[in-house]
Amino acid sequence: MVITRDPIVLDSPRALARLITRVERGGQDAEEVMRRLGPRPLTGRVIGITGPPGSGKSTLVDRLVAVARAEGRTVGIIAIDPSSPFSGGAIMGDRVRMLSHSGDSGVFIRSMAARDNLGGLAHASRDAARLMDAYGFDLIILETVGVGQSELDVVKVADSVVVVAVPGLGDTIQTLKAGILEIADLFVVNMADRPGADRTVAELRTMLNLGGVLPWGSPVLQTVATEDRGVPELWDALKRHWEHLETSGELAMRRRRRVETEVVELVERELRRRLRAQLEAGGELAGVLDAARSGELDPHTAAARIIERG
Amino acid sequence: MVITRDPIVLDSPRALARLITRVERGGQDAEEVMRRLGPRPLTGRVIGITGPPGSGKSTLVDRLVAVARAEGRTVGIIAIDPSSPFSGGAIMGDRVRMLSHSGDSGVFIRSMAARDNLGGLAHASRDAARLMDAYGFDLIILETVGVGQSELDVVKVADSVVVVAVPGLGDTIQTLKAGILEIADLFVVNMADRPGADRTVAELRTMLNLGGVLPWGSPVLQTVATEDRGVPELWDALKRHWEHLETSGELAMRRRRRVETEVVELVERELRRRLRAQLEAGGELAGVLDAARSGELDPHTAAARIIERG
Repeated sequence: MVITRDPIVLDSPRALARLITRVERGGQDAEEVMRRLGPRPLTGRVIGITGPPGSGKSTLVDRLVAVARAEGRTVGIIAIDPSSPFSGGAIMGDRVRMLSHSGDSGVFIRSMAARDNLGGLAHASRDAARLMDAYGFDLIILETVGVGQSELDVVKVADSVVVVAVPGLGDTIQTLKAGILEIADLFVVNMADRPGADRTVAELRTMLNLGGVLPWGSPVLQTVATEDRGVPELWDALKRHWEHLETSGELAMRRRRRVETEVVELVERELRRRLRAQLEAGGELAGVLDAARSGELDPHTAAARIIERG
Repeated sequence: MVITRDPIVLDSPRALARLITRVERGGQDAEEVMRRLGPRPLTGRVIGITGPPGSGKSTLVDRLVAVARAEGRTVGIIAIDPSSPFSGGAIMGDRVRMLSHSGDSGVFIRSMAARDNLGGLAHASRDAARLMDAYGFDLIILETVGVGQSELDVVKVADSVVVVAVPGLGDTIQTLKAGILEIADLFVVNMADRPGADRTVAELRTMLNLGGVLPWGSPVLQTVATEDRGVPELWDALKRHWEHLETSGELAMRRRRRVETEVVELVERELRRRLRAQLEAGGELAGVLDAARSGELDPHTAAARIIERG
């Protein structure tokens, strides 16, 4: 294999789109693109926005983009379409709505399908974010429907993670604890003109158990995205969060930690690929697998033998 | 390490519960229990039941168990509590409702938390199902809230996969296509006394594109679980499905394929564990990781070097 060492060309939205398609394909395609991009620290800020279907996430992103654009910041958006069979929601409608920025060369929107369950989505979205950063976008937004682990893996790589909730979340609030609390920097109660908004805010604050204030202000905000209410405040909170990340040294730390996770996961994917190829090729390992299949060995013993001999 | 070769003792519900706790812990604990159980073909039937929160799954399971018990079949149930931060639903209430069988020694219920995102849940539920089978239950039900990949991985190991839907699923029906169609043997439209039930049934039939009939009858059934309506028909359909699986040879084939997947996944988990231990121990590989962390190497190049030298 000839490895091209030429730097990649990122001179137009079309070139960017093509390179994202290649990293989305994964494997050697992604590897070549990212090798050629080279080690390159991110210069922009990455926001992850997640929340249940129907929480108005996409409208919120749409309005947040408008506020950022008004300050002259350019924005790249990676929108993950749901993989869960039950997630639902008017995803395509949301994508259409984003067309409000379609005449604006300072906004670039890319949808990605969440089909892959081997962590490929997290890798592809990370690489896509890096390409968008290299292209020069000031702000990169990763938007996911938070229904599964793979979607959480995507937003986890952001500098700021925003979780969108709606009034009347009620019973659901307990289940919010499972994984999202650790990674959320800001909670937004959207559709805050609906009954029960104050209670949801109070419940979130209690759950966070923080006295309600963090170095970047209140971690629980209210918005009515359809009317732009609260959106400038969210933008301010994000900027304060970044300032905090920078002055505290946490930004550098988080990004180093993230690179570490990424490398380990890339290695794991490759080991997995090689194991499968080895088993498919027949030979001794395939024989052990056969013994398990025919019931001569229990699966755990078979696995231990494959590891010993592999 | 001394490996105990004595067969495990499975002489009481308490002993069963203790062994399930050990397989739930995973790692060497699970390995030892399953080694001692030995290679042992399943003798009972495994049903996987999944569906969105609020579809009345647990009530349906409850009534299905009553029908099976009336025929003298014993039942072990593994109920997976949701891992998704947004799944919601009155999970604990459902568990309480299952107490209707609590005086019946022919029914054994075990909840498992869906916290692990490394495939541990699928392994633990598979091993637990095997223990229940060895204990002598005729029927093993894996019940999950179908919100994420890990829950789908759990029901995938069943002989029959039942997907529960509700009337008015509407837009969601399109998204059902993503993964569930390939693994579902039966669809149940529960709460079929609600408006729109016929339309949901028709939509599911169109989606299945099968002319509405499979060797085990219609793949789309209607139930009103709270009134026991349609539940005996579901039980009959399941029995016909098993008959088909046996006479066609598909049961043996499916089970062999499942063992294969299981072994491969166990090997992958162990390789992952070893890689992480190696990186944590310092040395050359850790140095490569450091170079990625400090921005000297891009993550893909770092991953390739670790694989070369590992």
